[in-house]
Order: sequence, then C-alpha cells, then structure tokens
Amino acid sequence: MTSQDGDAISDAARLREADEPSSPVIRFGKDKPLPLDAGVDLAPWQIAYQTYGTLNADKSNAILICHALTGDQYVASTNPLTGKPGWWSMMVGPGKPVDTDRYFVICANVLGGCMGTTGPASTNPETGKAWALDMPLVTIRDMVRSQAMLIDALGIETLFAVIGGSMGGMQVLQWAASYPERVFSAACLCAGARHSSQNIAFHEVGRQAIMADPDWRRGSYLEFGARPTHGLAIARMAAHVTYMSDQSLHRKFGRSLQDRDEITFGFDADFQIESYLRHQGMTFVDRFDANSYLYVTRAMDYFDLAAEYDGVLADVFRGSRTRFCIASVNSDWLFPTSESRAVVHALNAVAGSVSFVEIDSPRGHDAFLLDEPELFNMVRGFLKGAAGARGIPAPGPDRGPEMGVRAAAPQSGEVKADG
Amino acid sequence: MTSQDGDAISDAARLREADEPSSPVIRFGKDKPLPLDAGVDLAPWQIAYQTYGTLNADKSNAILICHALTGDQYVASTNPLTGKPGWWSMMVGPGKPVDTDRYFVICANVLGGCMGTTGPASTNPETGKAWALDMPLVTIRDMVRSQAMLIDALGIETLFAVIGGSMGGMQVLQWAASYPERVFSAACLCAGARHSSQNIAFHEVGRQAIMADPDWRRGSYLEFGARPTHGLAIARMAAHVTYMSDQSLHRKFGRSLQDRDEITFGFDADFQIESYLRHQGMTFVDRFDANSYLYVTRAMDYFDLAAEYDGVLADVFRGSRTRFCIASVNSDWLFPTSESRAVVHALNAVAGSVSFVEIDSPRGHDAFLLDEPELFNMVRGFLKGAAGARGIPAPGPDRGPEMGVRAAAPQSGEVKADG
Repeated sequence: MTSQDGDAISDAARLREADEPSSPVIRFGKDKPLPLDAGVDLAPWQIAYQTYGTLNADKSNAILICHALTGDQYVASTNPLTGKPGWWSMMVGPGKPVDTDRYFVICANVLGGCMGTTGPASTNPETGKAWALDMPLVTIRDMVRSQAMLIDALGIETLFAVIGGSMGGMQVLQWAASYPERVFSAACLCAGARHSSQNIAFHEVGRQAIMADPDWRRGSYLEFGARPTHGLAIARMAAHVTYMSDQSLHRKFGRSLQDRDEITFGFDADFQIESYLRHQGMTFVDRFDANSYLYVTRAMDYFDLAAEYDGVLADVFRGSRTRFCIASVNSDWLFPTSESRAVVHALNAVAGSVSFVEIDSPRGHDAFLLDEPELFNMVRGFLKGAAGARGIPAPGPDRGPEMGVRAAAPQSGEVKADG
Repeated sequence: MTSQDGDAISDAARLREADEPSSPVIRFGKDKPLPLDAGVDLAPWQIAYQTYGTLNADKSNAILICHALTGDQYVASTNPLTGKPGWWSMMVGPGKPVDTDRYFVICANVLGGCMGTTGPASTNPETGKAWALDMPLVTIRDMVRSQAMLIDALGIETLFAVIGGSMGGMQVLQWAASYPERVFSAACLCAGARHSSQNIAFHEVGRQAIMADPDWRRGSYLEFGARPTHGLAIARMAAHVTYMSDQSLHRKFGRSLQDRDEITFGFDADFQIESYLRHQGMTFVDRFDANSYLYVTRAMDYFDLAAEYDGVLADVFRGSRTRFCIASVNSDWLFPTSESRAVVHALNAVAGSVSFVEIDSPRGHDAFLLDEPELFNMVRGFLKGAAGARGIPAPGPDRGPEMGVRAAAPQSGEVKADG
C-alpha cells in the first residue's frame, strides 16, 4: 500500500485507507451516534488513530495531538499511503519535545477526513455507498466531540495535554472550552479563536476551484470512478502560498528559473516557484480526497469560539484551570500574532494560566511544522512544567520501574465495537 | 453595446471591442511591426486609446496613464462594455489631481489586453482568426514600446508625466528606463521594480485555474464558441483577495453572514465575503478575456527591471533627469513598501530626483484606485511642482487664451494607417 516518492498512489489504496485504515480504528454503531452541530446524529461512524509511548497506570500522561487541515494520525510514524515519515516526527518521539518515553501520545484523523475517520470518502455502512455530500457538514466542535468519544473508549478521563497547530490549534481551544475539566494543559500554535474573513476568502477560492472541476460531479465523483484532480490541485496551490511568508518564498525561490537559463516566453513553469507549486498540487491530489477538503475547510470557516458567548472570548475560559501555552510566528500572515494575542488577552481577563511566545522565524504559517528550535524548546519546557505539576515522573535510567502498560491498541471492554 | 449592471455582456460585444473598439485606435501595418522581447516582430497590430483634455501648442503637457492588470483605456470615461464610470474618475478630470483642464491625458489599452489593443482575443488580420496562443508572449517593456509608438503617432516627443499604479507602475518605471529623455516626470504607485516570488505564485494559481478549465481548450476556446468562465472567475477571486488587506476584509465583511441569521451547514455562500468574491468573479468574466489574463499576468511575472543591469537597480536610473514620485500603501502586502523603497534607494544612489510617500490606509493594494485623499494630494502636488518646472501654465479664469488644440483623435499625417 505504501508508495515510494514519485509513484502515484492508487485510488484503491486511498479508498481502502478511508474505510479500513492501516491504523487502529474504533467503530461506533447506531447505538453510539455522534451528535453533530448541524443538528443530526452521525451513525454509524468510526475514528482512526495512532498512539505512541505508554499510558501510565493512573492514565495521567496522555497527550492528544490534533492535526491540521491536511494532516493525519501519522504524527510520528510512516504514512501508509505516501511512505513519508510522520508529519511531526521532529516534535514527537523518544527524547523529543513531546517525549514518548514520558507521555502517551494519541493522534486521530479528524472527522470529515479521509484517512480512516468517517468523512465524505468513507463508505456509509448503511448504504454501502460513499457518503459524499450526504454526509452532514461538521464543525471543529464536532471533531472535538468525536475525539472525546475516542478518549472515553480508551478509558482516559483527563488529558494531560492537548496540542495542535493551525486547525489543530482550533481544536485545542475547543477542547479547553468544551471539556475544561478534561484538559490539564493546552498548547495552541499558529492558530486563533476564529477564522478571519481573509482566511474564509482563500478557502472559498479553493472550494470553488474544486466544485468548478467537471469531474467533481456535484460531489458524486466516487460513484463515477472520477476525481476532480485539477480543482483539488489548484485549491492546494492557492492554500500553499498562504502557508509561507513572502520572505520565505523569496529566500527559497526568489525569481530563480527552473532548469533553464532564460525565460521561455510561454506558460510552462519558467520559475522555480511555479514548478514547486505544481508539484505541491500534484502530490496532494495523490493522497487527499476533494470532498474531505471541502468539509474540513468549511469546519475551519465556521470556527468562532466566542460566538456562543455573545462574542466575549474571555467568557469561554472563565473558571478554567487549564494551563495554556499560546505560540505564534511573527511571519505568519494566515494566523497573525494578533489572533494569538486575542486568546492571551481573553485568558488574562479571567486570570487564566497562560504562557505566550511569538516566535521569530521567516517561515510563515508552516513554521510550526518545521525545524524551529525555539518552538521545540517552548513546547518541551511547557510540558515539563506541567508534568511536574501533575506528578508525571521524568524518564531516565534512574527512574523507577515502568509503571504503565503499552497501549498501542485500546483495551477490550473499553471499545465500542461496530453495530 | 453598453450593459447595465446585472445584464450579461454578450460575447459579440466583447469580441467587437477587441477588434473595433469604441475608443480611437491606431493600426500599424506590416511595415510598422512592433519588435517584441520574445524575439519576433508583431505585425500587423493595433493600439486603442482614449484622450482627455487638450494638447497644448508646444505639446509639453501630455500625460500618459498606464493601467493595471485588468484595467483599460477608459480611465475617466464610461467603459462601453460595462457602462461603468472610468476606473480612475476620482483622479483624472477637470479640477482633479490629474487636471484635464491643464494636462492632455492619454491612456491606452495594454498590449495583450482585450479592449482594442492587439491581444490574444484580437483577430489576426493576416489569418482572419483570433490570435489565441499564436500571439507571442509580451513583456512590460513590449507594452511600453507599443505606447512609445502610439506617442510617436500622436506627434508627442516628450511626455510631461507617466503615471500608473500596480502593473501601471511597472510600466512607469520601464518608461523611465527605456526612454529617459522622453519622460519629464514619473509617478509610480503601489508597484515595484520586479514581481516577487509570492506574486508569481498567486498568478500561477490563477493561470492554472484557467488552463484546467476544459472550456479553455488549450487556448482555442474562441474557435469553439466556448469560454473558460469558471477558471477565469476563480483566477479573479484568488487575485482579488490579494488586492485587499486582512484589515479591510475584516472591516468590510468580518464574519458576517449573507442574508441569513445562521450558518446553513452547506457550501452555499454563508458568509458575505464568499458572496462578494463570487460576484467579483462573475462580473470579471463578463468583461475580460481568459487568454488576455494569461498574457498580462505573465508579463508582470517576467518584470525585473534590474535584471538587464546585472541586478543593480541603481544602474537603471543612472544619469536620469526624470523627476520621480514613488508611493506605497502601508497595508499593501502584494507590493509592500519595501519594494517601493528599493526603487527610492536606487534613485538616491544615483542622485535622482525622487519624492516618496508611504500612505497610511487600511485598504491594501487596491487603495490606489479608491478615494484616498493623501494619494490625491500627493499626485496633485507632484504634478503642480513638475508643471511649474516645465512651464505649463495653470488653468484658471485669468489665464491667457487657450493655446492648445483639442486632440481627442490623432491628427492625420501622424497616424500610420493599417496596411
């Protein structure tokens, strides 16, 4: 099922991952519906996830990592479709800032995604057909609700930490808002408490590109064995530009030409940036589902944490005992520092516990996924402090005997089997 | 031919404007080819233009206005296709900053455009078919070269001023570089001496959207009576987001919903920004040609004024006696102030004459097209100073008798007739 770089991933492999993922999956039957903000219950449904490290005996060391728009549960292990290393391998692992020698890490594919959690590419077991647009729209809160049901199934009452960047950061804030008692600490990176008008605008461009592709077929492309690859690639290209800063694009590409000495006076990719973007579009199409892209971007657009508190963000966090860590990147123009500051100010207003860092990096929004020592140090230090407060023993040769159990798969009895 | 707001513009009307524009046009025959940077001669070819005000007797008061990517020659008069007022009516007219009581204003549709100057939508008189992709690619320098031939045809040796914003500003700088003796003063607004990697990236997204539309038909859509309207609309939407600032989008739209009280959990335009963008896309498609969009964006991408001077921008302006006015807008992230400053520094390095203003406005790149008093005052003041230096009399009830002649159409003998 694994594809080497350069080989196209087969439609069959991609669809198999959507229904029968390589990772563990929990299936919830009709008696365990997922109530959605759209006002309907989703059932049956399933959630696919990966775990790393060992859950300790008192289940106090569990960290949930929430992935971003096009991420997946393979945070620190090989993606079975692309064959590429986990998307946050530098952040998560033994001895890494999120130290799997000390913490038990869980990462689930988001609701609406296409890597094993129910989404529009999944087969609806009730009909035997892909959900496509018959799947109700989902919100960030729905994603978090589905993760809470996963955590319940894993027998974990309180998460030691919830961590995520970008859309993952939105989920972090939503976790702290929806389940304050279940979140000991929360690290929200390169995100904000709402999606801005400009962000909605860029998403809308991407969605229109997908929906304008005749192969989208009003969302029913899977029925026809078709795929809106052109539209999805364009959506990805447009989004990708927003993930980088002007400065990082200039440093990386400038106006350099692609394998040529002079411009060709044509519409081929004369410039490296063009070639790079086209490559980004093509490889993305290989691993992602177009309808999933519609659903998950829409969930981000709908995110506005203060809305249900009459627009007063501070009220979201009133009484919260969660320890917060908020980080932004100074060259991130998609989620600029002002959005993070708004969260910090709201927490300050209710005497919440919050550390805030604006990281100095030219890399733009995507910096949180890259090798940024300042970010690593911040996450490492924040977790260490919180772990001390929670009494999670530090790993090391002189620590006591291993108290936990390996919990790569949920224990039976805690898991609701399908149907 | 004029369309009221809301009525679709007919294909016939649009194609008629491309060949037989409502404005004056000069046709150059095979004996007057336009030499292009691509290394070929374009012939026959034509250039469509509008004029405002009166050319004075010594022809010293002519101002050339260069339009931006999707602009046209109707700078201060009704666009015959859309029925809308001229795109810079606030800037150009009697008593306006570019005072047509004092100056003779010329504005030509750019080479590669679709409003009467030769572009891919024009009929090649040699073949009787639309040029489409058989038209050679053009550069900003080619546009300026074509304008110089227009100015020659109008019998004007030296332009009192060349003025433009965005792609118009690129033409201004190119004019000053290519014909320093013919440009007395030059005002370059919201532009720069090169197109950045990020700007190329956004253009590439738009071009890919057009070329992915099956109705593009490898550029030959006019032959089939088709049009890649979806792709062109998406290109416009993506570009439009870049013309505004995050702040202006937030002020204008925020997260407001469009004619509804609650989100609909669907992919309709829930948010005002979505509805606005879709409208922008649709109205643009009505008036613009998709291949023209490819050609003109490509011309911008290729622009790099210093490239032919071993990357030393100052060398471009060495010895220039042109008086420069450079203006940027602090919220413009497409052509940020740093790009304008680079031009100012280059001019300083060769002891050029330059005034520079960074205008404080939240409106982003498009501010130069809007009601910005600071910009108007700057242009008015700059032109007044330059006009005094050039000895162009001020208008007014007590000025001397009118010395000029109305020159809305070129005088015969100065114009090269077709063929």
